[in-house]
Amino acid sequence: MSTYKYATLFLARNISVNQTRTFFSNLKCLDVTINRENGVAYVLMKHPPVNTLNMQLISELSLTLSNLEKSKCQGMILSSIFDKVFCSGLDLNELLKPKPERVKGYFSTFQELVIQLYGSSFPTVAAMTGHSPAGGCVLGMCCEYRVMKKNSQIGIPGSRMGIALPRYIVNLMSSTIGLRNAELMLTKGKILNTDEALKVGLIDEIANDRTDAIRKAEDFLKEYEMIAPLARGITKRIIRRSIIEDVKMNGAADLENFVSVIMLPEVQEKLDMYMYNLKNRKRD
Amino acid sequence: MSTYKYATLFLARNISVNQTRTFFSNLKCLDVTINRENGVAYVLMKHPPVNTLNMQLISELSLTLSNLEKSKCQGMILSSIFDKVFCSGLDLNELLKPKPERVKGYFSTFQELVIQLYGSSFPTVAAMTGHSPAGGCVLGMCCEYRVMKKNSQIGIPGSRMGIALPRYIVNLMSSTIGLRNAELMLTKGKILNTDEALKVGLIDEIANDRTDAIRKAEDFLKEYEMIAPLARGITKRIIRRSIIEDVKMNGAADLENFVSVIMLPEVQEKLDMYMYNLKNRKRD
Amino acid sequence: MSTYKYATLFLARNISVNQTRTFFSNLKCLDVTINRENGVAYVLMKHPPVNTLNMQLISELSLTLSNLEKSKCQGMILSSIFDKVFCSGLDLNELLKPKPERVKGYFSTFQELVIQLYGSSFPTVAAMTGHSPAGGCVLGMCCEYRVMKKNSQIGIPGSRMGIALPRYIVNLMSSTIGLRNAELMLTKGKILNTDEALKVGLIDEIANDRTDAIRKAEDFLKEYEMIAPLARGITKRIIRRSIIEDVKMNGAADLENFVSVIMLPEVQEKLDMYMYNLKNRKRD
Repeated sequence: MSTYKYATLFLARNISVNQTRTFFSNLKCLDVTINRENGVAYVLMKHPPVNTLNMQLISELSLTLSNLEKSKCQGMILSSIFDKVFCSGLDLNELLKPKPERVKGYFSTFQELVIQLYGSSFPTVAAMTGHSPAGGCVLGMCCEYRVMKKNSQIGIPGSRMGIALPRYIVNLMSSTIGLRNAELMLTKGKILNTDEALKVGLIDEIANDRTDAIRKAEDFLKEYEMIAPLARGITKRIIRRSIIEDVKMNGAADLENFVSVIMLPEVQEKLDMYMYNLKNRKRD
Repeated sequence: MSTYKYATLFLARNISVNQTRTFFSNLKCLDVTINRENGVAYVLMKHPPVNTLNMQLISELSLTLSNLEKSKCQGMILSSIFDKVFCSGLDLNELLKPKPERVKGYFSTFQELVIQLYGSSFPTVAAMTGHSPAGGCVLGMCCEYRVMKKNSQIGIPGSRMGIALPRYIVNLMSSTIGLRNAELMLTKGKILNTDEALKVGLIDEIANDRTDAIRKAEDFLKEYEMIAPLARGITKRIIRRSIIEDVKMNGAADLENFVSVIMLPEVQEKLDMYMYNLKNRKRD
Repeated sequence: MSTYKYATLFLARNISVNQTRTFFSNLKCLDVTINRENGVAYVLMKHPPVNTLNMQLISELSLTLSNLEKSKCQGMILSSIFDKVFCSGLDLNELLKPKPERVKGYFSTFQELVIQLYGSSFPTVAAMTGHSPAGGCVLGMCCEYRVMKKNSQIGIPGSRMGIALPRYIVNLMSSTIGLRNAELMLTKGKILNTDEALKVGLIDEIANDRTDAIRKAEDFLKEYEMIAPLARGITKRIIRRSIIEDVKMNGAADLENFVSVIMLPEVQEKLDMYMYNLKNRKRD
């Protein structure tokens, strides 16, 4: 089934074709459409096979967010065209035997995307259509609400792979599920199933399938139709300021630390082994 | 029924008249009595019809708190003489087409009251005898414990009215029910019923009626009889310091922002519409 | 039963004698053994009758932690050889009619131990074999996980004894059970039973007896065997940095305040009464 058909399938329910427009027609990894009636943007990741966050996808997400901020966007649903995966996370190949400048640039771009999404003035929902490990979980946590398809998995396995997490990712998890739960999950690199994620508060609702996830995301945004966007945005910014201020203060130093740890031989070795096992598991 | 009769009705159960004294006889909007036996102060709002926080009520609350700090007050129950309303919140007329200096003065006075109540050295309970929207909810959150009469409503509808909340109100909500719940409630301007409020932790107990609310507030204070007030007060101040310090650091700038947003034509328009609808609903 | 027999009883299940070694043979108040197979350290307090944290026990704990940091320690179980008590807390005799310099030195040493344990790079579990009041509760909260034997009690009665808690203890409680619960528990000096402690999140699991507590602690550490210690340690440090930074910034001033309050006649009087009652209760 073509990407376009997938996308329209989501939208078919309540948006006729002439109500939508392709927001950015020259995007490779994203389908972006806006419902002209209620101003809601549908941002669908379509980078096969599993929406790995390579430079292209990260850049397109960042560009799209900038454009949505400029437009009269009333809300955004971040989702995936794939049935089993929301987003598989960062590109591990960027971390294996990297040049320091390259990995620094890569992570700096991702850090900027996270802060942009986390601090967006309009309401945001993640309609997680499937598995959401690592960077996929991070994108979800940046949104204000998370709906996840049943039988999916979510979590940040960083310490299982030997990767020390940047401060802002640790902070995001703490502000989502609390300090205690964040420590237990992140130090163990725990991956949760849908029920566990709901119980701990890492997601807010469970959906039966992709269509249901999108519908529940729409229901969440619907409640904002009567709310003044300016007042709403200011309140959101106050709630979220401590993480954003921490990145502004400590983001650069944190990035240096992150890179210097990633370059350590013992970390590279652990990462190499993890990716080797991952490939072999896939072959089975 | 006269105000005085209402007040004594509360107190009749375990306080004979000669055990109490009128603390401040020249207050217009408050009944303040102290139980001489256990040192507990009963501060009852009596500003008809719904204890709207006009300048007079705010000033009398502030004055009373100062006097209670100086006296040997062992605890305070903040309540209302009205059966259906604890406190209806701030005076919206102060916000509609205001002079900047006037609205700044009004909000500055309320901010001072909030910090005074939140940081009081003695234990405080809100016996919420009925609805507690907006500023009524804020007064409740400043206390250490909240008992609310069943079938009442509580919440801060600010963003529904177009009003961007000041930082300290957002912070108060976050520290009461957690960051995630505060964001969801405040960006949506949600009003909760008693059961929802209990579940999320915005109130601590449900009471059957006003007398029951007062009794439960007294039970909460009773537990402090064996506690050293100095040690208790220092612990409370440590727990609450981050919000108080934030107001000291950012309160003035926050107030400027608040006023400049309130003065925006789009905000005034939304507020005007909200109050128009409110009046029409009341007439039905 | 001799101390040694108690200790080996814990360890007998899965550690043969030649797999363990006495880590520090000249310790008086601690048994420290390391399982050579998995690198887990067993630190058992054995200061009769109730592991009161006198200078000797505090110093030995601190020395042991330093040595474990230097060694390839993969995790630590902090426990007690006593069947009914994990740790009874600080030595109240140090607080009664003290010389300022003496009490300052005592509390400064304890503060350093707390930060050392709280900030340790390796995973830590408290296997609480019985009651854990005051300083015993603090030691437990410094660990990453708490298992407590059923029918035990835990809490910090400070304000009940007239003792104003230092900032870092208040902060530890807040980060363990949340701000609201911490305020209610600490201002009331509340002591919880095992079920209450589990419900509020002050402990993570209940054990049937001492052996079961140790086994559950081992199960918790087992999950870290596949985790990269460096990545894990960095994540833990990020989560825990705010309390550690607060002590570095404010610890000295906080200690001065603490001592000046402890020296007040009214505090000494309250403490004297508390200890008098304690002695009389024990005699019954």
